[in-house]
Amino acid sequence: MELDFVRWLTEQISTGDAVAVGIGDDAAVLEVPANRQLVVTTDMLIDGAHFELERHTPEQIGRKALAVNLSDLAAMAAEPLAAVVSLSLPKAEANSTLARDLTSGMTVLARQTQCPVVGGDTNVATGPLVVSVTAFGTAELGKAWLRSGAQAGDRLLVSGTLGGSMQGHHLSFTPRVAEALELAAQYEVHAAMDLSDGLALDLSRMIQASNVGAVVDIAKLPISQAANEMAQQSGKSPTAHALSDGEDFELLLAVPPATVTRLLAEQPLECGLTDVGEIVAGKNLMQRDAAGAISPLKAEGYEHR
Amino acid sequence: MELDFVRWLTEQISTGDAVAVGIGDDAAVLEVPANRQLVVTTDMLIDGAHFELERHTPEQIGRKALAVNLSDLAAMAAEPLAAVVSLSLPKAEANSTLARDLTSGMTVLARQTQCPVVGGDTNVATGPLVVSVTAFGTAELGKAWLRSGAQAGDRLLVSGTLGGSMQGHHLSFTPRVAEALELAAQYEVHAAMDLSDGLALDLSRMIQASNVGAVVDIAKLPISQAANEMAQQSGKSPTAHALSDGEDFELLLAVPPATVTRLLAEQPLECGLTDVGEIVAGKNLMQRDAAGAISPLKAEGYEHR
Repeated sequence: MELDFVRWLTEQISTGDAVAVGIGDDAAVLEVPANRQLVVTTDMLIDGAHFELERHTPEQIGRKALAVNLSDLAAMAAEPLAAVVSLSLPKAEANSTLARDLTSGMTVLARQTQCPVVGGDTNVATGPLVVSVTAFGTAELGKAWLRSGAQAGDRLLVSGTLGGSMQGHHLSFTPRVAEALELAAQYEVHAAMDLSDGLALDLSRMIQASNVGAVVDIAKLPISQAANEMAQQSGKSPTAHALSDGEDFELLLAVPPATVTRLLAEQPLECGLTDVGEIVAGKNLMQRDAAGAISPLKAEGYEHR
Repeated sequence: MELDFVRWLTEQISTGDAVAVGIGDDAAVLEVPANRQLVVTTDMLIDGAHFELERHTPEQIGRKALAVNLSDLAAMAAEPLAAVVSLSLPKAEANSTLARDLTSGMTVLARQTQCPVVGGDTNVATGPLVVSVTAFGTAELGKAWLRSGAQAGDRLLVSGTLGGSMQGHHLSFTPRVAEALELAAQYEVHAAMDLSDGLALDLSRMIQASNVGAVVDIAKLPISQAANEMAQQSGKSPTAHALSDGEDFELLLAVPPATVTRLLAEQPLECGLTDVGEIVAGKNLMQRDAAGAISPLKAEGYEHR
């Protein structure tokens, strides 16, 4: 990494109670609290695939690169510990301004979520801007939420609203870290994941991991304003957008019925939690309409490649 | 990540005593042994900058991407715990063969160093092949080697031989993980780093971090066969290659004199350890020739960008 940039970065973000050694050595050294497990996730964003450098600001891109990783930590009910970032800066755009602006966007979110950026690697190459972030968190021993714990009889809950993320939410969303930690502390959750590729496709992954089936009550879906707007252009229904648009970055939870009753009564989250269906025996993904008719639901969504 | 590839990857490598949850969930879950600190490093390799897909095999490239990260862990005397990998596969080359061959090269080294690959993100995009690896290890509390601990009077040791890495060593080197752990267990080491950009440039970084000076005994440098061969073509001396060629990935250590006497007598490492100079007061980087004459040494090396 260029030395000037390292110095600047060090001043910006490489701090935190858990950081024993931050940016500038061969590696960072971090304290992991006793009796906690390490949770690790990595996501790479590429110009043209996950953002457009021509349309989006470097700050937005840097923020998103950290946010998608934090969304994965939230899906595990993990408390953020730190993150590292690697950049491939396109030769034509290669200047410290781009790297700094990307990092600035990242650090705003890093501070809000107490997830210091403790290391990185900047490169200049031909090709598009590539931002690769690896985020670390910790979870109480054996308490990380998994995809594989859903049980027949569980209710399916989603946070926030669904669909139309490409209208702007995919750049500005707040990863549900605080929400996940609050839920994990107070409620029993059998399985969880974050919605990155659309409810239908992501739920199909949860039920496969859990070896169960599911029925989505499509009349109950919390449809976003953006999904309604997109439906006016796309020819698809708002419900179709809510089921299959990517990058909602909301939580999908399988929660035992007794807990759900309490949870929906207490509604502890500002973003809201909506009951959208149930886990059933078998292995099929189904939908139930407002009249109660059940039919197969296709596991279609946004296939990130 | 594509599901088929995830399944294949899971079978290959996502195992190890420390892995509570491997590939396939939103994040991996790992056990960190009690009383140990987490050590984290990340390095991104890009076609055209760090390797050439036309000349090097995917197995070599995958292996190198993990090896450079393990070299950073070795430089901290950290025991490998696990790694994650993100790929940007060029559209023209995008097939699961490339991803599999890359991963195969990585997993051979992962097994040898007990560093399972526990997560990843594969993407297809325009632009060159990008391989981003984040590796994490653990070190005994407060015992990680840093760059900043060198003291006047320390001797400077290097492992192996230096220079000419581009002849092939940069693809085939074994990161000095086992060597570092053996040294850390038995000998006092004040400061350490791995040589990625050449002894002269990297040493300048160590003395800056430690706020000391250094004198390199250039007549004592362990010059590699490859450096001698390159010198016949380059018009530079073998010593110049040993001082300033990049990607040696050897250890540079600052060791107190009493320990050095014992260490050089015992020579515990198969790769050898050579005394190449000393840490002195001040802040200058100098060289001493065979006749004892001292002159400034330029901090020139291979500037990875």
